[in-house]
Amino acid sequence: MPTTLVDSRVNPRFAGLCTFCRWPRLADVVAEHRPVDWVAYGVPFDGGVTYRPGARFGPRAIREASQYVKPFHLEFGVNVAERLSLADGGDAPVKPFDVRDTAEAVASFAAGLGDPTSRLLAVGGDHSIAYANIKATWERQGRPSGGLSLIHLDSHLDTVDVIWGEKWSHGSVFRRAIEDGLVDPRRMISIGVKGPLNTGADLDYARSVGATVITYEQMFRDGQQTLAQFLKHQVEEKRPSYLTFDIDVVDPAYAPGTGTPSVGGFTSAEALALLRRLRGVNLVGADVVEVLPDRDPAGITSLLAAHVLFEIIALTA
Amino acid sequence: MPTTLVDSRVNPRFAGLCTFCRWPRLADVVAEHRPVDWVAYGVPFDGGVTYRPGARFGPRAIREASQYVKPFHLEFGVNVAERLSLADGGDAPVKPFDVRDTAEAVASFAAGLGDPTSRLLAVGGDHSIAYANIKATWERQGRPSGGLSLIHLDSHLDTVDVIWGEKWSHGSVFRRAIEDGLVDPRRMISIGVKGPLNTGADLDYARSVGATVITYEQMFRDGQQTLAQFLKHQVEEKRPSYLTFDIDVVDPAYAPGTGTPSVGGFTSAEALALLRRLRGVNLVGADVVEVLPDRDPAGITSLLAAHVLFEIIALTA
Amino acid sequence: MPTTLVDSRVNPRFAGLCTFCRWPRLADVVAEHRPVDWVAYGVPFDGGVTYRPGARFGPRAIREASQYVKPFHLEFGVNVAERLSLADGGDAPVKPFDVRDTAEAVASFAAGLGDPTSRLLAVGGDHSIAYANIKATWERQGRPSGGLSLIHLDSHLDTVDVIWGEKWSHGSVFRRAIEDGLVDPRRMISIGVKGPLNTGADLDYARSVGATVITYEQMFRDGQQTLAQFLKHQVEEKRPSYLTFDIDVVDPAYAPGTGTPSVGGFTSAEALALLRRLRGVNLVGADVVEVLPDRDPAGITSLLAAHVLFEIIALTA
Amino acid sequence: MPTTLVDSRVNPRFAGLCTFCRWPRLADVVAEHRPVDWVAYGVPFDGGVTYRPGARFGPRAIREASQYVKPFHLEFGVNVAERLSLADGGDAPVKPFDVRDTAEAVASFAAGLGDPTSRLLAVGGDHSIAYANIKATWERQGRPSGGLSLIHLDSHLDTVDVIWGEKWSHGSVFRRAIEDGLVDPRRMISIGVKGPLNTGADLDYARSVGATVITYEQMFRDGQQTLAQFLKHQVEEKRPSYLTFDIDVVDPAYAPGTGTPSVGGFTSAEALALLRRLRGVNLVGADVVEVLPDRDPAGITSLLAAHVLFEIIALTA
Amino acid sequence: MPTTLVDSRVNPRFAGLCTFCRWPRLADVVAEHRPVDWVAYGVPFDGGVTYRPGARFGPRAIREASQYVKPFHLEFGVNVAERLSLADGGDAPVKPFDVRDTAEAVASFAAGLGDPTSRLLAVGGDHSIAYANIKATWERQGRPSGGLSLIHLDSHLDTVDVIWGEKWSHGSVFRRAIEDGLVDPRRMISIGVKGPLNTGADLDYARSVGATVITYEQMFRDGQQTLAQFLKHQVEEKRPSYLTFDIDVVDPAYAPGTGTPSVGGFTSAEALALLRRLRGVNLVGADVVEVLPDRDPAGITSLLAAHVLFEIIALTA
Amino acid sequence: MPTTLVDSRVNPRFAGLCTFCRWPRLADVVAEHRPVDWVAYGVPFDGGVTYRPGARFGPRAIREASQYVKPFHLEFGVNVAERLSLADGGDAPVKPFDVRDTAEAVASFAAGLGDPTSRLLAVGGDHSIAYANIKATWERQGRPSGGLSLIHLDSHLDTVDVIWGEKWSHGSVFRRAIEDGLVDPRRMISIGVKGPLNTGADLDYARSVGATVITYEQMFRDGQQTLAQFLKHQVEEKRPSYLTFDIDVVDPAYAPGTGTPSVGGFTSAEALALLRRLRGVNLVGADVVEVLPDRDPAGITSLLAAHVLFEIIALTA
Repeated sequence: MPTTLVDSRVNPRFAGLCTFCRWPRLADVVAEHRPVDWVAYGVPFDGGVTYRPGARFGPRAIREASQYVKPFHLEFGVNVAERLSLADGGDAPVKPFDVRDTAEAVASFAAGLGDPTSRLLAVGGDHSIAYANIKATWERQGRPSGGLSLIHLDSHLDTVDVIWGEKWSHGSVFRRAIEDGLVDPRRMISIGVKGPLNTGADLDYARSVGATVITYEQMFRDGQQTLAQFLKHQVEEKRPSYLTFDIDVVDPAYAPGTGTPSVGGFTSAEALALLRRLRGVNLVGADVVEVLPDRDPAGITSLLAAHVLFEIIALTA
Repeated sequence: MPTTLVDSRVNPRFAGLCTFCRWPRLADVVAEHRPVDWVAYGVPFDGGVTYRPGARFGPRAIREASQYVKPFHLEFGVNVAERLSLADGGDAPVKPFDVRDTAEAVASFAAGLGDPTSRLLAVGGDHSIAYANIKATWERQGRPSGGLSLIHLDSHLDTVDVIWGEKWSHGSVFRRAIEDGLVDPRRMISIGVKGPLNTGADLDYARSVGATVITYEQMFRDGQQTLAQFLKHQVEEKRPSYLTFDIDVVDPAYAPGTGTPSVGGFTSAEALALLRRLRGVNLVGADVVEVLPDRDPAGITSLLAAHVLFEIIALTA
Repeated sequence: MPTTLVDSRVNPRFAGLCTFCRWPRLADVVAEHRPVDWVAYGVPFDGGVTYRPGARFGPRAIREASQYVKPFHLEFGVNVAERLSLADGGDAPVKPFDVRDTAEAVASFAAGLGDPTSRLLAVGGDHSIAYANIKATWERQGRPSGGLSLIHLDSHLDTVDVIWGEKWSHGSVFRRAIEDGLVDPRRMISIGVKGPLNTGADLDYARSVGATVITYEQMFRDGQQTLAQFLKHQVEEKRPSYLTFDIDVVDPAYAPGTGTPSVGGFTSAEALALLRRLRGVNLVGADVVEVLPDRDPAGITSLLAAHVLFEIIALTA
Repeated sequence: MPTTLVDSRVNPRFAGLCTFCRWPRLADVVAEHRPVDWVAYGVPFDGGVTYRPGARFGPRAIREASQYVKPFHLEFGVNVAERLSLADGGDAPVKPFDVRDTAEAVASFAAGLGDPTSRLLAVGGDHSIAYANIKATWERQGRPSGGLSLIHLDSHLDTVDVIWGEKWSHGSVFRRAIEDGLVDPRRMISIGVKGPLNTGADLDYARSVGATVITYEQMFRDGQQTLAQFLKHQVEEKRPSYLTFDIDVVDPAYAPGTGTPSVGGFTSAEALALLRRLRGVNLVGADVVEVLPDRDPAGITSLLAAHVLFEIIALTA
Repeated sequence: MPTTLVDSRVNPRFAGLCTFCRWPRLADVVAEHRPVDWVAYGVPFDGGVTYRPGARFGPRAIREASQYVKPFHLEFGVNVAERLSLADGGDAPVKPFDVRDTAEAVASFAAGLGDPTSRLLAVGGDHSIAYANIKATWERQGRPSGGLSLIHLDSHLDTVDVIWGEKWSHGSVFRRAIEDGLVDPRRMISIGVKGPLNTGADLDYARSVGATVITYEQMFRDGQQTLAQFLKHQVEEKRPSYLTFDIDVVDPAYAPGTGTPSVGGFTSAEALALLRRLRGVNLVGADVVEVLPDRDPAGITSLLAAHVLFEIIALTA
Repeated sequence: MPTTLVDSRVNPRFAGLCTFCRWPRLADVVAEHRPVDWVAYGVPFDGGVTYRPGARFGPRAIREASQYVKPFHLEFGVNVAERLSLADGGDAPVKPFDVRDTAEAVASFAAGLGDPTSRLLAVGGDHSIAYANIKATWERQGRPSGGLSLIHLDSHLDTVDVIWGEKWSHGSVFRRAIEDGLVDPRRMISIGVKGPLNTGADLDYARSVGATVITYEQMFRDGQQTLAQFLKHQVEEKRPSYLTFDIDVVDPAYAPGTGTPSVGGFTSAEALALLRRLRGVNLVGADVVEVLPDRDPAGITSLLAAHVLFEIIALTA
């Protein structure tokens, strides 16, 4: 397997073992003592879901769909794979029966990936896996006090305190990250939140700790300005920022393959345009989560997720 | 089974017998002598279709999908299930081989549901079932002379006179309702109509009797004002209004599971926003029709229909 | 909802809320002070799986498919629903994040279902849920020392000791049941076991504790006699017997919708014929498990499971 | 379009307008004044179903699948398309809202197809359409008193008297055919009947009028002899025989795409072997019914039905 | 089969052999010595693909889906089938193993279709088949020097020079057409192009030869004016224009059934609106390509393609 | 990535990059200077098909499904991965537009895989790819004059001379292999051949050159003895034998995901039992071909193919 991107004009995209976007395996890059700008790795875990499971097969499906991701970014005008050194770090170890044990195992695995300066991109798995990657990123950034800035695209707030007696699930991930100082809620923005909700309490919490919330409807009213201001501040401040992308932020028509789909959301084009607006932000880590292949009969959800992964990487090219 | 909404933070949404949105069964509410604001009931009938059948399985699929409908309306800021007393009335009796006999059986069944003041929401089934619920609603409203006002979201006008020698089908339902005085055509608005048509005659009829028609294309030209004016008048006049929602008004990308899909329509988000504009109208009855589960491989059509049902109810919360 | 079977010649099978095989709800039967021969209940849990999750949606899918189960058993010549008093007990409470907590909650729920003499049929859910129903049945039988006899149809032995550090999963259920004295391994027979296996250790364990194992291949060699002898002994001894049916015992062509499918197994017809041979056994409880609707595009797995449920009940009619 | 079979070694089987098995259209054969041995025609009607509709799309799907049916019968050693003059008669007119009106329209259409000596093969549609083709065949045979002999492969007896107040449905078709003298019940054999049934009455009726019933289970006990004797008598007597093949006689694993699937049935190979045993019978008409494409995700049901059609024709080659 | 459009108010749209939009077969129209305005024909070929094959089944699926295309254009207010004489020319001969041989065979077949003045609409098949129809159209137009004007809706530029050593594939079709003088690159416009690309070279080539390229993102910035100007010039100049529509120009949510899907594209409604803007252009030929039915579980891609075909025809009504 | 089998009791089978059956990559084994008993490699090519394409995605799907293949063979009682050194050789280079060029490229690639004594197992791809692996195996065996013995499980004979003017396709592969001396037709057996055929000529050819053909029907008459005798001779003679397994030899119910499905075939269990009878044969190479994932909605075809691969390897353990 080559240690540079496989050239699809020589080897067809339907051939070969599947790594993310046909990047080399991390071990092979490391063996050549080359630096790595981004390591993408899978977290095949769905033990944190509250509705439909199956996202443990997300990394596998996204790797497969990503064989069709091409390297030249049309809008930015750059060949991303030439500008950046990219690698597939394989899958993190998981503890299928326990969210917290998995979080620890993943964070520990992630800590050892690539150089100390490599950015980490975790591919879920359910949203609970974001905790570990945020933690690993936060540590890699020198544990900035106050936590990382967080850009959060999602239909859900994921700020539930407890569900069915459990504090660790995909619905509580940001509450825990805030409580543990990994994320600075005053530098957190949640975009694309949609109803209905179980209760208004999750929203109240988010706002009470200082997070900015732009619901889907607000986005088409005054959300654009709110976002612009947030981003302007981020860019100026250069604070290390983490991006978490829950695929259910797009409408089920675009992403049927997810466990808690929410009707009436962004189109794919809107989501990609949103991502491209983040250029300039000091992006230090990211995740793409909640792809559930068994509900994705035509594979469009995995294909979109693979391109989201590419667009995130491209922001730093 | 409880007589209030099942709390999903105790019992997961993937557990339990399926009633609409996890509401109590009507019989259980009635047994407690509690009033009922809305009764939703199914009409598993597709004997009125002119193309692909299967909508008889619509109520079952929508009930199942509705287990994921949460009660707190994000935009309105209210917990709908707390504000309103809601119940699942079960399925109406149908005569699978006859549209007219079914209409009678359903209307008679609907007449006995809940209190005299309960609003009725019929879940189809094909669009022919709307006749019975309109009739039951009209009677419950004291048979207003001139008929009910009608807000009609649909790709099709459903004003065909006769097809294959038959006057009763899903393509003729509003022609019959107008002829029978249940609907006032001058207070009827059809939104989202798309071509191509079999002939222009259906459109000519609708306009000749005074109905307002806003085609999909008009909606993005001058339709907004037409609608605004219609709604303003409705709100002022407080005339009892009936809402009929054919799922094919949204694009097949959002609602593949329907029998006569029409390309180039609303997104889910546009349809939901449209519904939310109806707040203030004196809504006295409604239906959601034409969901065909066998053409809905990822379940997104049923999920959307379940949320449409919720949004309609929420208008009165 | 009636307290006797819904007559499909009056109400079509595609109409009405879905209880198992259109039986009355247990609460309604109990309210009439009628005895209950069998209570079927769902256990929407898949936290014990080692490969593909999603069986938590099994009870819902089987209830829906079971609307088409008719009551007259052609081979036995009896109307099962007339001979027996049957009821749907709803879904057991589950703890989605923990196998052991769920086992306790389910066993406790099951203990309270129907009369003390009602037989319990649990509908999974993954195979880990069998533990709770076996335990509840064992207690209902007066805690027979040595444990229940067990008739086990499955591709897998489910006698693994530990996996990923965990002693409670769908792969360990009978090891735990044997250890806890709920099942008598010398009166246990596993039929239809297929390879390949992870190791030979699971098989060695089963045989070492005295269980009879008939692999799929043996069934077509000398397995018939082994089975006949086992059953003859069972019938003579009248020992209370529990039947556990893992849907993956049939070939994936017949049951694609399962989490750990195993190629080269029984046809549906062979499995049904096998079940019918159990007539005469003192059957005191049963389960049907491992249906995973998201991998069942044509619904044939749920349909088969619903009929397996019926055939089990019919053995006692 | 040629008036002989399209040669797939010149034009690929994935090219061209779809007629049954790539046969010429009847109109084109007639225009050349050539005789026709068999006319296959579609009856796109499902107004007679009691459960899942959609078989109206059966003829279209079977025509498409039949593009892959090759002409040389391996076991008989003959090129069927060379031995026989075959034609596609198009689709019969139907009255989508009425079983009886459709029966009349179809019978009248069928009466005019091909020569008076052409055999008719109707492709459903639901089983109710068999009545019309039996009637047309019976008339073409000179209205033999006592009716035609009937060979009936089906999971169901279809001898229900009335359902939901209606005497005409797919469940009553042979009761009506017997009552009207089109079929001689004493020369009728139903093969592959499976339970469970709604009641035992349908079976009692069939036997009371003299029909031979071989259930699926009997087939593997003493059914082979019963069948052999029946066929021997048929061959000797040379009585005009009609063959009706309901696709649900095979197991749902082989034919998921059908409206009332019945678990535990024949394999495809068993069904084809059964058909081949009919060689020598004086076969004068046939039908293949109950294919429902919307439940056939991999197209195997339509493919099987297309080959059943071919095997039936081949019996007379 | 009639030589005018089949009237669906007499014969249901689910009945009859499938020609495009239920038009008569070309042979039947020709036999009546009637002129033909448009001939649509299929090209069941996918030997030119670089990723997922299967578009050879496109013509068949589009014919089937087009049974639901109605003739009256709502926005234009005309019955297209009455204004124009339309015919289905069947499928072109193809050489499944060779792109160039197929191109020749198709061009030769197309040359003989209808009158010399009939416009040709090819239904693919992969995009490589456009070459032949462009060539046949160019010849039918008297081989205009400089080539035809080309309006190109597509996610991809299809101006690759060589891939895997091969100059003929679906990625090179317009490069070859330009080189061979069939298309005038200065009168060519590519709309809806999306990234990422393999390299920037394809885009550089297109621009270097004078083509206008409007990427998807540009369309929502300044693309509207660019397009307006291009069209104004086209209308004034009356130059013979060819329209090529690759279904992947719409988002995968709307057209999952295609071989090289590209995320973040037009909605169906946007694409249809774009087409309608072409009214007034001197349209002399067209194609609709890249529908891959095996990735289209709900059939929405074929349905859209069938309506695109209708909208193209309607531009000249 | 480890150079021994991944232990699924540590790393779950749903985690990690996908190699065949979780074996190490060949490069990693070679780097450790370890011998290799079998190299499995993919050939993602479907340019040789005559009907439905898509088998180029076969290797990818089979790798994914093979994650669930366990190492301990229940019937043979051995841990296959411990007894043999197994490796995944990656995918061969292909020339997507040309069968012959691909054959050369694959044969050349295969020649360099593993040790000279490693056996080669090619995973298709369409059946045309078998030529290259047979050739590489024949050369590795020292080019035995007269050719290899061939055990051929398939619905089709694949002995067509020319189709559409082309001598190289999946229908001609064994004709070419025989002509080129790679296969000894007198030591070739084709098992499971089913009709109908295009002509009887393919069968005539096979028999005329001395091949043994056991049709599906013969298998259940006198085929068992014919096979037993053939195998006895093979075992005694110890002649190097090649096994080619076309997945369409099993019935479409078991293997819907294939391009030219043939109804009425083996069950999976029958096919596996057949394979196990080959123990003792001097097996020197093999292939598994014709898996088409896009027609395999529940993944059962890929799962079966993965186990066939395992069973073949196990024959030599």
